Amino acid sequence: MFIAMNRFRVAPGREGDFEELWLSRDSHLKGVPGFVEFHLLKGPEREDHRLYSSHSVWASREAFEAWTQSEAFRKAHQGAKPKEGMYLGPPNFEGFDVLQKV
Amino acid sequence: MFIAMNRFRVAPGREGDFEELWLSRDSHLKGVPGFVEFHLLKGPEREDHRLYSSHSVWASREAFEAWTQSEAFRKAHQGAKPKEGMYLGPPNFEGFDVLQKV
Repeated sequence: MFIAMNRFRVAPGREGDFEELWLSRDSHLKGVPGFVEFHLLKGPEREDHRLYSSHSVWASREAFEAWTQSEAFRKAHQGAKPKEGMYLGPPNFEGFDVLQKV
Repeated sequence: MFIAMNRFRVAPGREGDFEELWLSRDSHLKGVPGFVEFHLLKGPEREDHRLYSSHSVWASREAFEAWTQSEAFRKAHQGAKPKEGMYLGPPNFEGFDVLQKV
């Protein structure tokens, strides 16, 4: 199993814009081979931003990577135009291999 | 739903020590009220460390917080003595509220 997270640093006061953008978009993930589930996560408040993260679970790293090369991925990302000043910088991607499950 | 992650920066060459320590311990999580599941995650390699993270899913933030005050929590953490030089610093805790699930 593989977990893909994309970490977003959202500027103070822009949390509403971020949530509206993400909650209204179509992820086009249902039916993608190897896709298990997707969560949108609201993380801790830091000194200069609020951390948010997308969080998707995949059957394998290979399934995730195949999706990033697919038409479904292109569709899911073409609609997500962030408003100016919403982010402190580009998102930070982290992929995790699941070593143990309890 | 709530996801609790504790991020560990493991020194280069100490990945085996870290995995042995974590994979051999008893998390004492089964049967804890509100506990859903636990994963041990191996993340990306960075310039000066390898990122690992514990990842537990809870019915609510309150259930997680109640566990941190419990005897089961104390038991789960008393056995985890890290070897010297294994970590680059203390772990970094991040709690996430689930805003959306697909």
